[in-house]
Amino acid sequence: MTCIPDTSLSVENKRSTDKRGSRACDMATLPIGVFDSGIGGLTVLKMLLDAFPAESFLYFGDLGRSPYGSKAADTVRRYAVQITDFLLKKGVKMIVIACNTASAVAGDDVRNRAHPIPVIEVVRCGAKMALEMIPEEHRKSARIGILGTDTTVKSDVYVNRIHELALKNGLTQPDIRQQACPLFVPLVEEGWWKGEVTEKVAENYLGAMKSFDPHVVILGCTHFPLLADPIARALPEGTALTDCAPAVVDEVRSILINRGWNAADVNVAVEESNRTKTVFYCSDTSDTFRRQAERFLDMPIEFVHHVDLETCED
Amino acid sequence: MTCIPDTSLSVENKRSTDKRGSRACDMATLPIGVFDSGIGGLTVLKMLLDAFPAESFLYFGDLGRSPYGSKAADTVRRYAVQITDFLLKKGVKMIVIACNTASAVAGDDVRNRAHPIPVIEVVRCGAKMALEMIPEEHRKSARIGILGTDTTVKSDVYVNRIHELALKNGLTQPDIRQQACPLFVPLVEEGWWKGEVTEKVAENYLGAMKSFDPHVVILGCTHFPLLADPIARALPEGTALTDCAPAVVDEVRSILINRGWNAADVNVAVEESNRTKTVFYCSDTSDTFRRQAERFLDMPIEFVHHVDLETCED
Repeated sequence: MTCIPDTSLSVENKRSTDKRGSRACDMATLPIGVFDSGIGGLTVLKMLLDAFPAESFLYFGDLGRSPYGSKAADTVRRYAVQITDFLLKKGVKMIVIACNTASAVAGDDVRNRAHPIPVIEVVRCGAKMALEMIPEEHRKSARIGILGTDTTVKSDVYVNRIHELALKNGLTQPDIRQQACPLFVPLVEEGWWKGEVTEKVAENYLGAMKSFDPHVVILGCTHFPLLADPIARALPEGTALTDCAPAVVDEVRSILINRGWNAADVNVAVEESNRTKTVFYCSDTSDTFRRQAERFLDMPIEFVHHVDLETCED
Repeated sequence: MTCIPDTSLSVENKRSTDKRGSRACDMATLPIGVFDSGIGGLTVLKMLLDAFPAESFLYFGDLGRSPYGSKAADTVRRYAVQITDFLLKKGVKMIVIACNTASAVAGDDVRNRAHPIPVIEVVRCGAKMALEMIPEEHRKSARIGILGTDTTVKSDVYVNRIHELALKNGLTQPDIRQQACPLFVPLVEEGWWKGEVTEKVAENYLGAMKSFDPHVVILGCTHFPLLADPIARALPEGTALTDCAPAVVDEVRSILINRGWNAADVNVAVEESNRTKTVFYCSDTSDTFRRQAERFLDMPIEFVHHVDLETCED
């Protein structure tokens, strides 16, 4: 099967041929596209599945080219745009970039490419949430820590977003410290979510962050929430950790409500199989993705479609 | 620049148009192609550069899609064939697969694709060397350990090669134990070549291998020689470690001599810049490859060509 537009689902087709419902109804029946370099974004998908049981999802994991976090911004941008094109051809009503590295360096590219389909990305959500989580008594002299991959940290995107948001909301600019933690990603993928090695790696990376004594630390990679316990132990007691997934859920909910795109509200007939199914696509043919997805999502996954974005075949 | 054949170097061109010298002379002037998923293969390139100062080399690091070790065999095979096509178009007299994972799952594909250009790969070299390194007194009951990536270990290619070689040479079949050590790769790439975490990871992976008490352990990934010290400390004292690079050098030398392709022996005029230059190609645009290559090779590298194998542009 080639990745020509899936006309049974595509936006254009729905808009032009449906005679019964409004455009909002048509959009409501489409799935939400979610993508990540691999499996980290499944932590975001899990919260979306829990929050929106009536929605259907297409998840793309670029495991054939993961991880993104150590690759050049240009390379990640190219990959993110390819995946966006794939999701748009499949027909989605919204795109969630569930990967901090891709959000950091390709957020604007994906947004421009997908327009007018809305794009939600984890960096904006995480930055907003971190500012909201600062305790009232520290608002005038807040300290925010950012943990991410090499490429995310180098992009300074979290720093810039926090500064923009603080300015927009008339808040005192917080003091910010960043720390790249590249080994956290393979540790999660190896399944070493706890244990002596993981504690030691967290201690090695977070020594300077501990001295900085932040009020809030952003887990700026979708893998990192799985290491929340060892990360918390390597930081001063009581440091708040920001997982961006709940903020993504809030933003998705807000779009669904404001635009009337909520699948649960649609009165036109929608086949059960289309409405509730999550379809998985992966750029690697191994069974790793399916096994890890079953573990992350705690649900059985029968099939993962293999997609070769280079030849555009699945 | 697109990756159409580089006619100033390509085999076909040399064969058909050169009126002065023999075919052996033409081949001698061509560079040797070396490739890896990223930077691990530089350990092999370093030994080749030291051994053959008159040869020129093209090195391709697929850092835009690395690591290979956790990806499906099909995926790695596809990438290895793309790189082979790229090197053949550039015009090389020989291809060295300096990546165990690619050798393990794509050795035959690369060989078929490159024919009649010879292909040397690290797995055959490593298996041969391991058998040669078994102490005389243990030849009848040898124990060989194999350390590799997930994909290399799952392929069983080292086990099969050792069995074939032992059979061919009338040796008693050794007892073999394999251990996947996927975290060794990101530890090397993070530059943590020693230290507490690396020691602890080596201990975690090699507990069962230590009990197996092998006579020889194959470092079955081109990253692993950089962790030789912590690996040795996690194994019984006196365990011999096999780094395949010296065996690759031997095989390259043998081909150069037997076919008369030694650049140093060529009498036809060869420009100095063509003969001694190593040209680096990488599928990622970051500066990571250049910096790591300078560190691995201990020499300044001015420029790395970016190649996008999907669009075939560099």
